[in-house]
Amino acid sequence: MSTPNAAYSVRLQVELDNKPGAFALVASAVGGAGGVLGAVDIVGSTAERMTRQITVDASDEAHAQRICDAVRRLDSVILHEADDRTMQLHQGGKIEVNSKIPKLTREELSMAYTPGVARVCRKIAEDPSQVRRLTIKANTVAIVSDGTAVLGLGDIGPEAAIPVMEGKALLFKEFAGIDAFPICLHIDPPTDGGDPGVDQIVDIVARMEPVFGGINLEDIAAPRCFEVEAKLRERLDIPVFHDDQHGTAVVALAALRNALTVVGKRIDDVRIVMAGAGAAGVAIAKILLASGASQLIACDRKGAIHLGREGLDPSKQWLAEHTNSDKEDGSLRDVLAGADVFIGVSGPNLLTQSDLVTMAEQPIVFALANPDPEVAPSEALGVAAVYATGRSDYPNQINNVLCYPGIFRGALDCGATTVTENMKLAAAEAIAGAVPADEVSAEYVIPSVFNKDVVRRVAEAVARAAVADGVARSDR
Amino acid sequence: MSTPNAAYSVRLQVELDNKPGAFALVASAVGGAGGVLGAVDIVGSTAERMTRQITVDASDEAHAQRICDAVRRLDSVILHEADDRTMQLHQGGKIEVNSKIPKLTREELSMAYTPGVARVCRKIAEDPSQVRRLTIKANTVAIVSDGTAVLGLGDIGPEAAIPVMEGKALLFKEFAGIDAFPICLHIDPPTDGGDPGVDQIVDIVARMEPVFGGINLEDIAAPRCFEVEAKLRERLDIPVFHDDQHGTAVVALAALRNALTVVGKRIDDVRIVMAGAGAAGVAIAKILLASGASQLIACDRKGAIHLGREGLDPSKQWLAEHTNSDKEDGSLRDVLAGADVFIGVSGPNLLTQSDLVTMAEQPIVFALANPDPEVAPSEALGVAAVYATGRSDYPNQINNVLCYPGIFRGALDCGATTVTENMKLAAAEAIAGAVPADEVSAEYVIPSVFNKDVVRRVAEAVARAAVADGVARSDR
Repeated sequence: MSTPNAAYSVRLQVELDNKPGAFALVASAVGGAGGVLGAVDIVGSTAERMTRQITVDASDEAHAQRICDAVRRLDSVILHEADDRTMQLHQGGKIEVNSKIPKLTREELSMAYTPGVARVCRKIAEDPSQVRRLTIKANTVAIVSDGTAVLGLGDIGPEAAIPVMEGKALLFKEFAGIDAFPICLHIDPPTDGGDPGVDQIVDIVARMEPVFGGINLEDIAAPRCFEVEAKLRERLDIPVFHDDQHGTAVVALAALRNALTVVGKRIDDVRIVMAGAGAAGVAIAKILLASGASQLIACDRKGAIHLGREGLDPSKQWLAEHTNSDKEDGSLRDVLAGADVFIGVSGPNLLTQSDLVTMAEQPIVFALANPDPEVAPSEALGVAAVYATGRSDYPNQINNVLCYPGIFRGALDCGATTVTENMKLAAAEAIAGAVPADEVSAEYVIPSVFNKDVVRRVAEAVARAAVADGVARSDR
Repeated sequence: MSTPNAAYSVRLQVELDNKPGAFALVASAVGGAGGVLGAVDIVGSTAERMTRQITVDASDEAHAQRICDAVRRLDSVILHEADDRTMQLHQGGKIEVNSKIPKLTREELSMAYTPGVARVCRKIAEDPSQVRRLTIKANTVAIVSDGTAVLGLGDIGPEAAIPVMEGKALLFKEFAGIDAFPICLHIDPPTDGGDPGVDQIVDIVARMEPVFGGINLEDIAAPRCFEVEAKLRERLDIPVFHDDQHGTAVVALAALRNALTVVGKRIDDVRIVMAGAGAAGVAIAKILLASGASQLIACDRKGAIHLGREGLDPSKQWLAEHTNSDKEDGSLRDVLAGADVFIGVSGPNLLTQSDLVTMAEQPIVFALANPDPEVAPSEALGVAAVYATGRSDYPNQINNVLCYPGIFRGALDCGATTVTENMKLAAAEAIAGAVPADEVSAEYVIPSVFNKDVVRRVAEAVARAAVADGVARSDR
């Protein structure tokens, strides 16, 4: 069970006696049920009674229910409403499309729409490069998903994926000033004969490219995501970036750089064991190899991936060919023994403290499964020298929001035609560098997601790398 | 040449002597060249010299150039800059995507994104109808174009069409509070064997439907637009509306209702001649027939469309079967003789005063081609009893913006699954009714595009019609 937090918070309207000590009863009922009391407001009162609105953090939905029940059981207290704050926040969605023209007069209308707009259209028709100057294109990103691998929820479909894509869009705006819009697609499922969905997604995205300056692929299941990304990169001259792969990989590498500094080890010296060989796992393996890692073993549910194993799909075959050079066989637990670094991008609670103690001295443990990590905090803390998760309620939160706003900001700013490996490595360096060298510690290997400096650093580094790689547009 | 207007306005930075009478020289040069002086600001001054920024409306780009040249020729005046205001307004595009969460704290982040968002996704996965409550869907419209029939510019492609779609999106927000986003598509051209583009557009739109509560088709050439609309209406349970057809038809019908009142005629009595049998023409014919018109002749470039003519495409064949019951043959001019109403949705300057005088007493002339009408104001004014155009610089502007924001507002408000004929007729009635009965006159047959009351009236009427037609969602 997680720490009570805002994601499971409720807003309660409670009516109680208007006399000293009455609210203390409510507060102690909430506390007794394990809830964490937040804001308390008065919304109405008479001489005898008072209505207060209170916010309470809970650990999960059932816990929130138990807290409400505890309040309901109080004599002389009436619980009028109990609203789920997260659901409330989502009412009507989280993003909107606005006009950038502050006040639409008849004059502005005749410029923004007919007849004035015709000249703008003609200008773009005559000189296609003007589309980056005279439309939203140069600052607009499509967040494209088929809803097949949403968070830890799996294949929940394109409608149910929308809240994630809206969340991503608002973070793009909030952190990088980028206009992003969710494109959630009904795509046919794979068949025995192959996956028609690959070309469906590729075709749609390629055809809708005119309005967009970049494509953020999101929550598309492996192996579909690999093919979709590869084909779109081939076909489009705008950046295409599958965040679940490369965003995770970039941030994990950034955190690992600083974590290795904490324990005084070098990336080319350490034994790294990974759990998870899906989209994120493959991307992490690639970026670690590109950064000099030489002892890397990836595991899936069946254990270590190595060249001797039968029935590997193409991406696992790639892993077998490029990692685990000693062809070690065995379970995750088996190969973890002696490892310096564990990186999990798989599922909850795979390992316990007794597994971690088999690792090398000063082990680094990145347990990135969301919302429940591969190694629970209670198992890892005190054993791991550095422990990082995807959670915001512990130090060292590995969150993609540290990467994708800055990557796209940098790519759009220089009009990059693609995202190169060097641009990703530059992003990881910039993120790692956002933690001041003299402040790097076991509990501070990665900057806060609210560190606004990160986007600027990442964007600048990415744009420099794009120019160096010759993929920046000169006529932008 | 049109009246000088903002669509062709320029902003000039002029440096001149800082002494009485100096600016009068500039003003008279501008006026002498036919420009209309707007705002005048001081942007800098010394004892001897002063820099002013002035706005000047011109009739077209060449005219703006002549005005600048006239200013440049003045002694002791330096023209530092001359910016095209329309191009300036379009820099970086006209719309943006914003977060609806005013301040993103760590708490809000944990609700709007992981981990909180997972519960919202799950809720939609369990109960798909929640997508209308917990995402942007219920207030979001896709503006879909392939760029094949943009304004009067023709097939300029999806990139060059973007400024129009952005303009439409900003009007959706400004007038109806609807979030609309441009989807501009690369679509293959028709071949001799048929038009693969129809299914391409249908497939893309149907697959991207999850995020959208409505589809506004825009600037898609006939006959492709007819098939795309029909197939999408069949396939989707959200409103699909091709504005160039139905928006134009609704507003034209609204104006015609009031115009007939002005001249004291009835729709079932009048002879109506149309020029243009494209998307808008067919839709206007349909709505006029549905409204009781019985004497209707549509013309294309070859003249009157009638059952005897060879080589009619399917939509013209439909017109032949449903209009011109006397099978009149001849040119537009021929059949115009004796007509009570002319409605043009074709091209510029087809008719002159000498044609209009052959019409019946008190002729109604709607010359809707943009930007240059079928009958120029100089030809029509004084002859036509009621004259309407698409232009904002004459009375009676027939502008789709009177229709589509209200149609979609009404359809979204009641969760309509489609747009029915009755909803369109209700919209036309509501628009006509927005001109108070005692104010209807030859110069006031249609409300101003800035009459905010129109959207409310149209939305209410459309929602009522949807409920009456049984297409409103009950579980919204």
